[in-house]
Amino acid sequence: WAIRHDDDRPRRIGIAEAVLCSGKTTEQAVAAAEAAFAAHGRCLMTRLSPEAFAALPEAFSSRLDYDPLSRTAVLGAWPEIHDQGSVAVATAGTADVAVALEAVRTLRFEGVASDLVTDVGVAGLWRLLSVRDRLADYPVVILVAGMEGALFSVAGGLLPGLLIAVPTSVGYGVTAAGKAALTSALGSCAPGVLTTNIDNGYGAACAALRALNA
Amino acid sequence: WAIRHDDDRPRRIGIAEAVLCSGKTTEQAVAAAEAAFAAHGRCLMTRLSPEAFAALPEAFSSRLDYDPLSRTAVLGAWPEIHDQGSVAVATAGTADVAVALEAVRTLRFEGVASDLVTDVGVAGLWRLLSVRDRLADYPVVILVAGMEGALFSVAGGLLPGLLIAVPTSVGYGVTAAGKAALTSALGSCAPGVLTTNIDNGYGAACAALRALNA
Amino acid sequence: WAIRHDDDRPRRIGIAEAVLCSGKTTEQAVAAAEAAFAAHGRCLMTRLSPEAFAALPEAFSSRLDYDPLSRTAVLGAWPEIHDQGSVAVATAGTADVAVALEAVRTLRFEGVASDLVTDVGVAGLWRLLSVRDRLADYPVVILVAGMEGALFSVAGGLLPGLLIAVPTSVGYGVTAAGKAALTSALGSCAPGVLTTNIDNGYGAACAALRALNA
Amino acid sequence: WAIRHDDDRPRRIGIAEAVLCSGKTTEQAVAAAEAAFAAHGRCLMTRLSPEAFAALPEAFSSRLDYDPLSRTAVLGAWPEIHDQGSVAVATAGTADVAVALEAVRTLRFEGVASDLVTDVGVAGLWRLLSVRDRLADYPVVILVAGMEGALFSVAGGLLPGLLIAVPTSVGYGVTAAGKAALTSALGSCAPGVLTTNIDNGYGAACAALRALNA
Amino acid sequence: WAIRHDDDRPRRIGIAEAVLCSGKTTEQAVAAAEAAFAAHGRCLMTRLSPEAFAALPEAFSSRLDYDPLSRTAVLGAWPEIHDQGSVAVATAGTADVAVALEAVRTLRFEGVASDLVTDVGVAGLWRLLSVRDRLADYPVVILVAGMEGALFSVAGGLLPGLLIAVPTSVGYGVTAAGKAALTSALGSCAPGVLTTNIDNGYGAACAALRALNA
Amino acid sequence: WAIRHDDDRPRRIGIAEAVLCSGKTTEQAVAAAEAAFAAHGRCLMTRLSPEAFAALPEAFSSRLDYDPLSRTAVLGAWPEIHDQGSVAVATAGTADVAVALEAVRTLRFEGVASDLVTDVGVAGLWRLLSVRDRLADYPVVILVAGMEGALFSVAGGLLPGLLIAVPTSVGYGVTAAGKAALTSALGSCAPGVLTTNIDNGYGAACAALRALNA
Amino acid sequence: WAIRHDDDRPRRIGIAEAVLCSGKTTEQAVAAAEAAFAAHGRCLMTRLSPEAFAALPEAFSSRLDYDPLSRTAVLGAWPEIHDQGSVAVATAGTADVAVALEAVRTLRFEGVASDLVTDVGVAGLWRLLSVRDRLADYPVVILVAGMEGALFSVAGGLLPGLLIAVPTSVGYGVTAAGKAALTSALGSCAPGVLTTNIDNGYGAACAALRALNA
Amino acid sequence: WAIRHDDDRPRRIGIAEAVLCSGKTTEQAVAAAEAAFAAHGRCLMTRLSPEAFAALPEAFSSRLDYDPLSRTAVLGAWPEIHDQGSVAVATAGTADVAVALEAVRTLRFEGVASDLVTDVGVAGLWRLLSVRDRLADYPVVILVAGMEGALFSVAGGLLPGLLIAVPTSVGYGVTAAGKAALTSALGSCAPGVLTTNIDNGYGAACAALRALNA
Ligand SMILES: Nc1ncnc2c1ncn2[C@@H]1O[C@H](COP(=O)(O)O)[C@@H](O)[C@H]1O
Ligand SMILES: Nc1ncnc2c1ncn2[C@@H]1O[C@H](COP(=O)(O)O)[C@@H](O)[C@H]1O
Ligand SMILES: Nc1ncnc2c1ncn2[C@@H]1O[C@H](COP(=O)(O)O)[C@@H](O)[C@H]1O
Ligand SMILES: Nc1ncnc2c1ncn2[C@@H]1O[C@H](COP(=O)(O)O)[C@@H](O)[C@H]1O
Ligand SMILES: [Mg+2]
Ligand SMILES: [Mg+2]
Ligand SMILES: [Mg+2]
Ligand SMILES: [Mg+2]
Ligand SMILES: [Mg+2]
Ligand SMILES: [Mg+2]
Ligand SMILES: [Mg+2]
Ligand SMILES: [Mg+2]
Repeated sequence: WAIRHDDDRPRRIGIAEAVLCSGKTTEQAVAAAEAAFAAHGRCLMTRLSPEAFAALPEAFSSRLDYDPLSRTAVLGAWPEIHDQGSVAVATAGTADVAVALEAVRTLRFEGVASDLVTDVGVAGLWRLLSVRDRLADYPVVILVAGMEGALFSVAGGLLPGLLIAVPTSVGYGVTAAGKAALTSALGSCAPGVLTTNIDNGYGAACAALRALNA
Repeated sequence: WAIRHDDDRPRRIGIAEAVLCSGKTTEQAVAAAEAAFAAHGRCLMTRLSPEAFAALPEAFSSRLDYDPLSRTAVLGAWPEIHDQGSVAVATAGTADVAVALEAVRTLRFEGVASDLVTDVGVAGLWRLLSVRDRLADYPVVILVAGMEGALFSVAGGLLPGLLIAVPTSVGYGVTAAGKAALTSALGSCAPGVLTTNIDNGYGAACAALRALNA
Repeated sequence: WAIRHDDDRPRRIGIAEAVLCSGKTTEQAVAAAEAAFAAHGRCLMTRLSPEAFAALPEAFSSRLDYDPLSRTAVLGAWPEIHDQGSVAVATAGTADVAVALEAVRTLRFEGVASDLVTDVGVAGLWRLLSVRDRLADYPVVILVAGMEGALFSVAGGLLPGLLIAVPTSVGYGVTAAGKAALTSALGSCAPGVLTTNIDNGYGAACAALRALNA
Repeated sequence: WAIRHDDDRPRRIGIAEAVLCSGKTTEQAVAAAEAAFAAHGRCLMTRLSPEAFAALPEAFSSRLDYDPLSRTAVLGAWPEIHDQGSVAVATAGTADVAVALEAVRTLRFEGVASDLVTDVGVAGLWRLLSVRDRLADYPVVILVAGMEGALFSVAGGLLPGLLIAVPTSVGYGVTAAGKAALTSALGSCAPGVLTTNIDNGYGAACAALRALNA
Repeated sequence: WAIRHDDDRPRRIGIAEAVLCSGKTTEQAVAAAEAAFAAHGRCLMTRLSPEAFAALPEAFSSRLDYDPLSRTAVLGAWPEIHDQGSVAVATAGTADVAVALEAVRTLRFEGVASDLVTDVGVAGLWRLLSVRDRLADYPVVILVAGMEGALFSVAGGLLPGLLIAVPTSVGYGVTAAGKAALTSALGSCAPGVLTTNIDNGYGAACAALRALNA
Repeated sequence: WAIRHDDDRPRRIGIAEAVLCSGKTTEQAVAAAEAAFAAHGRCLMTRLSPEAFAALPEAFSSRLDYDPLSRTAVLGAWPEIHDQGSVAVATAGTADVAVALEAVRTLRFEGVASDLVTDVGVAGLWRLLSVRDRLADYPVVILVAGMEGALFSVAGGLLPGLLIAVPTSVGYGVTAAGKAALTSALGSCAPGVLTTNIDNGYGAACAALRALNA
Repeated sequence: WAIRHDDDRPRRIGIAEAVLCSGKTTEQAVAAAEAAFAAHGRCLMTRLSPEAFAALPEAFSSRLDYDPLSRTAVLGAWPEIHDQGSVAVATAGTADVAVALEAVRTLRFEGVASDLVTDVGVAGLWRLLSVRDRLADYPVVILVAGMEGALFSVAGGLLPGLLIAVPTSVGYGVTAAGKAALTSALGSCAPGVLTTNIDNGYGAACAALRALNA
Repeated sequence: WAIRHDDDRPRRIGIAEAVLCSGKTTEQAVAAAEAAFAAHGRCLMTRLSPEAFAALPEAFSSRLDYDPLSRTAVLGAWPEIHDQGSVAVATAGTADVAVALEAVRTLRFEGVASDLVTDVGVAGLWRLLSVRDRLADYPVVILVAGMEGALFSVAGGLLPGLLIAVPTSVGYGVTAAGKAALTSALGSCAPGVLTTNIDNGYGAACAALRALNA
């Protein structure tokens, strides 16, 4: 097998190809990351579990800035920050922070510093209301929530910016695996809430970058 | 076939058997209702569609108090009201009113007058907040919502009473048929929200009666 | 039942409450539209089927600008166009045009003229490639596709703007009801594609408005 | 990330926020529990697996009263018992006891002593009939059952109190993961049976507390 | 197209091929029935809706003994009854009678008279208990129930004979279309309950015939 | 909206674009067919229901060779037959013939005459065995079956040619809508059985054409 | 918690309560088995994995006759064989043997010796045909198959006895977890095939015992 | 249990029975392989995980040519290559290579050398376009893709040969387990794309062999 790195992607859509590590062997992940590094001088690796990180050759892993909570790694140097007032990332619970950090670090990898606001789930509505004005100032807000995902609709009625819902697999029983939060995001009674795949903080960040680049 | 009316049910659990008309032939529905009427002097018929109502023999249907929106009919006289400050019924949208009325009329059939509050969905949060104190006074609140059912969780964090969620089949796409609202009710991040089957206003009323009888 | 129109919504999020007609009785739909009209001097009605339109009182329906393909109606005067280079709407097939027009008319109701490009499904790839430069100029592109929804990923790799996928219920067998196109949108291998509920052209337009207002 | 403990919750709805440990890192779980402890002088932790318990810092875990079967822990002192004749908890099988104990301990954490009755599944109907009078005396009965959940309907026809079904994930094949028991609870032919999420003993207890507080 | 009637089937398995009418055109249904009639001198037609019956050529339909409730028709003469103490058919509700009659008439078509017992659902347990001794005498009992199908398990613990569950599509919400009753039959906590497809009274009768022939 | 007919398709893949009529308005279907006719001098229309056919303008429909069972129409002249010993089409039941004919007529539209063999379902195994040698001679066999789709596996073990399974929506209960037959085709224990979408006789024919063209 | 062993079950339905070990703690499984042993002098334990067996106290496990493939154990002495020509058990593949042995050993625990026939899947049809006469002699045949379960229908057309299908979770992709084989059993085109839950060899044996006792 | 190897299969359909190792015990896998080896002088084993390989007796495993990525092993000598210009295998990503290699090695086991082309997913469309001419020359192309499977449709519009889609379980959230890629393959808007079960590289190779043998 051979890697065909999409080195032309930044020119076409403004975002470099990241390496999705889950499903790849160690050898494949390293080869893909080196191809990206060769093209762009840096590379973002996602869904790199602590076990997969530990299995990497030391000569490679020592070159990574790895965060186990978000399971992301950066090979090469981070870029300068060129935007810091455009994107907020809000989570319903603390278990959603891992996915939120995948978004935060993906944004940061493209030079965008974001504002992370955690634990504002609607069971205690005052928490969201207390950060409402702060969030209302951002053109783009990424909302990260699992279980039944009610946060998406309540935020959807209160905030004017572009809203990107990221349903998470946090939950059990009917909310296990994120399907319940996903259907809440898709079926929201608040107008204009958009959605990514379950646990896809990376995709939410890419969408935010598209909005900022536009 | 023969009807075996459960005439002993009021003694056991305090609620008379109602006649679920969907799925029954005209002849079966009439026979079941007459058996209940014979035992208790009155009978509640549910899920009696306008078409099914029109197909009833005139001698029978003229004895009914029929409401097409809730698709319920009462054969015989309504009882006196013996309770009127215990139960509120709140809906997210106006399309949920049909199901809410099934609950209201079932309660009324057992002598309980309830307080119907409509159109308080969370997309415009001020609507729910404006009725919060009114709803917080009731020991039992029935919540009726379709689409993504975010109302259940927001109300769950604001109201102290027993909360009975009724997911409705109002919606389309992933929210068609009520599954999305149902999973939101079941997976609510607010503690102690309970749920009935989709569109089951009758069951919600029966549960409220159980709580009041206790 | 009483309508609680969310007249404060434009102030909070910049979009007026529209009337979703499916699931409402004729009486409820008219009351909701009149409440919106009273607050804002105009009103958008969605999912108003030809049958439901025909059932409206003539005195009311004669005040509507109704389009049966998109099932939308406008009560009151259309606003001036204030934006016309920001949003394109592209469809995979001609059967997807109905949903696309719901987006186009919702945008137009808020003063945004959009560019409709039809029948660019990937089975004949040259069709999409022939409009690629035209679409690449728009900050926001709404993509409307049913069946397996491959358009979302191909466009996702070619276009730099904010991409809003609208899966449609066009198809049969495993693609009936839009679930297949929806999962393709959510699981796209192209980074940063966002999604609405199935057939939700209205929601896609609202999301585009959020991006433009930001 | 920061914890936003909902310390106002007891005032609003009469129940303190518990810490759901599954999905949280050790550090997050401890921080959440300490925040609750700081606000209320005690804290309930749920879904704390033996593995997660073992991973806690010894200085913290030594302050916990931990029960591995129910996977619950209490930080701080248990309150006095203020109610002991109001709630029974009945299980279909012995494998359901773990979930039942989550309910029992949650109730006890709020000062309510409950009556646990185990192994009364309907395959041997005499077992339920032999405890029928004992259960019929309680205003609230929590029913815990997996597999096909037939207990919910049989108890629903025999007991007058408020019935809270907790479907469990006990089973295999079509009953694996609790969906079958859940649909039996939701679709029960007995009137007024209410339901929680699968395995949600905590939620059932909270609902019972709502009923008792009313 | 040509019909290939399986005229050898009675020799192999003791049951003649019946004509499943749903899905067939009028012409196909008639041709299939005539082929069976030619081979065996009589024919059973199933799932022949009143509309499909009305569309048959009068010269053909006048030769049928048609029952609209069970949607079955017999072409040719009924056989003698050769067995009448072996099979009982019991239903949970009256809406299940249509499916039960499909079983009763299929059995009768093969010369077996069965005992139909209706409306013994477990919501009023005394009903089943009052017919328990009657049903316990039969070597084969066909159980017909929709909604949540709790009857299967309760009867499974009380009756010694071969139990054949027929889940019906009677219900709504999560019990619509019979999936909930089906999973209850499959996952029954009572040992040795067997199941047919949803609404398959015909198959249940054929299985009973296999047991009797054995 | 405008049609973008893929007139280049025959050059690329050897098959002309057909018009899928379901989901299209009358006006759209006619426009699409005329565009294809303009490019190629003939056009195949699929999924044209008798109701949709009746709604066509008479001037257009009079130019069609329409078959209501397969719901296909041909505009313009049929081509010469250039192949007649390569493809057989076999059905499990007579209700599957409609889908089989869609395949037969699509093949014929491209000049391929096929051999239709009906009613060889495995419940009477001698039927399939009696045509085994006939079918074993064809390089390509299209297998059309609904219900549980056991034909696919049995034929898969007996026939050497390329096997294309077409699951049909013939059935009820768990086999309604074709999902059961589809999973049997996909999960067949016989090696190398391939599958199309449910009811997709058109697609099966196109695949056969690809194999013949190769 | 306390065990309520159903010691009356043999009198009611002729089968003793077995102990389902999955889901039970070691302590619960031992207590349940001892209660059964106390009542009947022997006990059958099912779904006792090798890991669970190894975790049992040595003093208890040394009294068991344990078979790891079927995951069954017998405490106490096996009964005499009183029937040996009535039941055959046939499997499609060798991976299905584990489930088949659960049936064989359950039958043997009740004194019935059965005839096990393995690896007769329909991909090589001669295998089933070569044992057809042998199987056709049995009044009851248990059929065990995973993947797409085509064996159920082919055997259903060839064998006259009572047929009990046991779908197994053998397979991957769409056949993983046994749903595909289950729907094939339920939707079989052969008349009178009955079904148990996935992997439920125990239930199939109990049903066979019901048929033999009748 | 006994193995009944289908040694007649090559004569009937031209492909030898392979041994599917998942679900089999070590003893069963070895016995099945030896039976095949005895009949044909060689044997292909599939889904033999590294763990299962390590558990094999050394005397047996030393005779195998094992590839851990594709989890295939060959017992005995590989045959000569007799075809090398007929089949190409293309993957969307590098994580799909494992499944592609199962196809490549199965083909090679039957003497067919194939052309493996990796990492041509549509997110970077130039990758597929750059290999288009190479792939267009093959009569059979196996397409291997996970996530949303858009590759199937794009290739379907560009390549003339027989197209065999193999959806893979590569992905997460809604694309986990391969269902999304599968529905894209089945519902492709490109005509004549055929599909195997998820991850079934073996089946795709067998289908290709059928086409080549025809
Ligand atoms: N966490 C992620 N979730 C979704 N897509 C991703 C993620 N990380 C990388 N990708 C994209 O997945 C696509 C396929 O990845 P690969 O298999 O590495 O070629 C690439 O275009 C990546 O940009
Ligand atoms: N709308 C309803 N939803 C659910 N259950 C109902 C409804 N109406 C009546 N029931 C109950 O359904 C059970 C079965 O009804 P039946 O088939 O009429 O005997 C009865 O015990 C009724 O109390
Ligand atoms: N019955 C059918 N099933 C599946 N696809 C079809 C069918 N009939 C036509 N098509 C294809 O569907 C694609 C989209 O159709 P259209 O929406 O007409 O552009 C075209 O490429 C047709 O070749
Ligand atoms: N990877 C595979 N996927 C699907 N089927 C397979 C695979 N490997 C072998 N088979 C077939 O699976 C059938 C059943 O396998 P067995 O259980 O080994 O008899 C055999 O006919 C094999 O040809
Ligand atoms: Mg919290
Ligand atoms: Mg409103
Ligand atoms: Mg087209
Ligand atoms: Mg037939
Ligand atoms: Mg009744
Ligand atoms: Mg027990
Ligand atoms: Mg084999
Ligand atoms: Mg890549």
